[in-house]
Amino acid sequence: MSKSNMDLGVLGVLPVRASALNSARAVSEWLRLAGTAERSRMVAQMSKEQIVHLVSLLDEQTGPELLGSLDAHAAAQVVRAAGVERCGRFFEALDYDTAADIVRQLGGVRRKALLQTLSPEYVEALEAVLQWPPESVAAHMIPDVFTIGPELKVPAAQESVRAQSRSGGGKVHGGTGQIYVTDADRHLLAAVGFDDLVLADPNQTVAQFMSEDPIRVGPLTDAEHAARILIDYDLLALPIVDDQGEVLGVLTAEAADDILIEEATEDAERQGGSEPLDVPYVRASPAHLWRKRIVWLLVLFVAEAYTGTVLKAFEDELEAAVSLAFFIPLLIGTGGNTGTQITTSLIRAMATGQFHIRDLPRVLFNELSTGVLVALTMAGAGIMRAWTLGVGKEIAITVSLTLFAIVLWTALVASLLPPLLQKLKVDPAVVSAPMITTLVDGTGLIIYFLIAHATLPQLAGL
Amino acid sequence: MSKSNMDLGVLGVLPVRASALNSARAVSEWLRLAGTAERSRMVAQMSKEQIVHLVSLLDEQTGPELLGSLDAHAAAQVVRAAGVERCGRFFEALDYDTAADIVRQLGGVRRKALLQTLSPEYVEALEAVLQWPPESVAAHMIPDVFTIGPELKVPAAQESVRAQSRSGGGKVHGGTGQIYVTDADRHLLAAVGFDDLVLADPNQTVAQFMSEDPIRVGPLTDAEHAARILIDYDLLALPIVDDQGEVLGVLTAEAADDILIEEATEDAERQGGSEPLDVPYVRASPAHLWRKRIVWLLVLFVAEAYTGTVLKAFEDELEAAVSLAFFIPLLIGTGGNTGTQITTSLIRAMATGQFHIRDLPRVLFNELSTGVLVALTMAGAGIMRAWTLGVGKEIAITVSLTLFAIVLWTALVASLLPPLLQKLKVDPAVVSAPMITTLVDGTGLIIYFLIAHATLPQLAGL
Repeated sequence: MSKSNMDLGVLGVLPVRASALNSARAVSEWLRLAGTAERSRMVAQMSKEQIVHLVSLLDEQTGPELLGSLDAHAAAQVVRAAGVERCGRFFEALDYDTAADIVRQLGGVRRKALLQTLSPEYVEALEAVLQWPPESVAAHMIPDVFTIGPELKVPAAQESVRAQSRSGGGKVHGGTGQIYVTDADRHLLAAVGFDDLVLADPNQTVAQFMSEDPIRVGPLTDAEHAARILIDYDLLALPIVDDQGEVLGVLTAEAADDILIEEATEDAERQGGSEPLDVPYVRASPAHLWRKRIVWLLVLFVAEAYTGTVLKAFEDELEAAVSLAFFIPLLIGTGGNTGTQITTSLIRAMATGQFHIRDLPRVLFNELSTGVLVALTMAGAGIMRAWTLGVGKEIAITVSLTLFAIVLWTALVASLLPPLLQKLKVDPAVVSAPMITTLVDGTGLIIYFLIAHATLPQLAGL
Repeated sequence: MSKSNMDLGVLGVLPVRASALNSARAVSEWLRLAGTAERSRMVAQMSKEQIVHLVSLLDEQTGPELLGSLDAHAAAQVVRAAGVERCGRFFEALDYDTAADIVRQLGGVRRKALLQTLSPEYVEALEAVLQWPPESVAAHMIPDVFTIGPELKVPAAQESVRAQSRSGGGKVHGGTGQIYVTDADRHLLAAVGFDDLVLADPNQTVAQFMSEDPIRVGPLTDAEHAARILIDYDLLALPIVDDQGEVLGVLTAEAADDILIEEATEDAERQGGSEPLDVPYVRASPAHLWRKRIVWLLVLFVAEAYTGTVLKAFEDELEAAVSLAFFIPLLIGTGGNTGTQITTSLIRAMATGQFHIRDLPRVLFNELSTGVLVALTMAGAGIMRAWTLGVGKEIAITVSLTLFAIVLWTALVASLLPPLLQKLKVDPAVVSAPMITTLVDGTGLIIYFLIAHATLPQLAGL
């Protein structure tokens, strides 16, 4: 094969059309080139007939390769379209965590039918994963790990691992690069990498090069939290142990990446002012999108409706100087933009662990200093804009002062809100751009009219 | 040590205060518990004196462990504060990619002084990384990889890898779990994992279990693109080859995670309507924050200033029915919220490869269908709000019709804009919440007054 296919061009030859997947050879070539995202995208847009045809072209190797690499929603879509009989035969080659993710997407009847096509041993191991709550790390673990004793010499340790691999039917997971050192009761003592077993002097015992007391978590640890620990501590795999310290399974780096990508998608949707979708965006129906979006739209509508009350309260001022209205969108828009910038930076810093509540005074000082610089700049821009609209000196001064005040006020609100929510144990990611915008709209208008009152002679008598 | 420390409690005992790091033992204990983020956060808030004291407590093991795990900005801060002499001795234990990241943060004089403290061999390998443009994958690679021939039997392959590890002083990277199979000229043929070398039957040759034609990239491939390939194809490591197919180095999964986390932070800042910061948020000065934020604030201010022109053009209408002004923030706010929801979902779907330009018709149909549902709901909410404000039937109808029209119009603009930018090779992540809000504000007002004209009798004569 040509090297260029595997270089950058790899994405250049894609995507192919669903209709091009018309032979086992074409499917196998497509699988060689397409990554997880492209495979899932393709399946998402295939008709039931096309999926049935695709599955008929899969063999013992390409079947598990496809099912195991799709996101769980797409894999479940394949199972539903092609039927559990056609797909069941591929399941026993899947890692238990992958299989469990797919099975969780299936309804009770299909799930039962699928499990009946599998061997009792496989079903037992699968149910060891399925029994845990979906949000827990144990629901994403591979339940079998390689274990060795600390007293083994290198060749004996290698032989022990090989024997476990043979008896586990290759199901025990090597790709994670971790082997756990346990005592006779499977209590976790230490970890060694496969690389250690290769690189160590063959005369050494495992105890001489193992890493003691590896970081571990309990089975009910939140999956996202566990995934962050794995990434933050640069681990290849994170062992999951029960109360007694016995090894239950392992979270692989690959599974951690999947968890964090899904979580980042949920956070992005929250930041955009929507409830997180239950399915990938491209598979969400209009009814689903409507349901997830309308909640916040209505909440924000009710909150924003307050601006109407504010404006009605200042009706006389508006009638006396209707040109005040010209600046309403500009003033509250700038407030919203300033606030969005701050909350976005702050929430990201909190999500990546850069920010601790103890840093709040320093962050607040920093944001308010920045706020003064921004406020001065925007006040200058406001003067210029009012001048070009030809609304007179007083209104220009009012607009300029208001911009200064709104920017500073927003800086204060936007810097305090996310840490406050964290303190209250609410995920600060709910502070979406729409939310901060709505918050400063009403208050910004009040600031505007109060300043107008103080500066405009024609409002003096009101 | 108590198991609970290493379980969830691991984050519960943190953070400690900088002043608590007052002995080599305390530092070593802190390193055992704190992950990358917490270590970097701690360093960010330490004074120069505290950093000098911390470095004086580091030894040959904890020094490289700390420097190698900090983000590059924090590590460079340590080098600047404690001096190149005190820190140089830790560098030779760092992976080349990590060392190169830190060196890039240092100014010319300090960089030169630091390199002079290092051995010529180390400097040579380091410069093999530093020579590449910072945005390229080669700038993030580990330049040494294990290579073996395909004809070796397992024990000979293991011995060859051990010999390379000894002669490379442990610098060749085992943690990635990949060994590359090459011909005599170092042309990449295949890959094997360390786990393969342990699990294979000792009588087999490498050729019998190697994975042929592994996915590879050229050295100038964009680092983010390469990192995405590594994640999307579930690879442990991504080999980097030159034009002739010779192996230059490897991108590890760990380095890919770092690249993608940094990229996600930049995207988040863009989505919040700011230029990406050059340093982590918690270390950004007010002047830096001002510079990065003010660009977009001014651009959006100029764009939003258009709303003033629109309102001025409808001055007569506003004077004839000043209660029209009450609804301005609510109407354009709802438009902005709707648009933000859509662009956020869409940009995320594009960033994760769920969306291809070919899917646009389907996505557009889906978004417009959703838009109709949302528009109907919001129109109903608008009627209710106008009724509670007591502004009369005509204005209530105007507001309701306007909400319907604005939501649909926004759905159209927001669904088309990100794909259009992608088509024009502009990163769709620049479509921030503030940008879409600004876009629909002016057009929303035009829609409002056009509808008002058609429905309000008191405007009929204008």
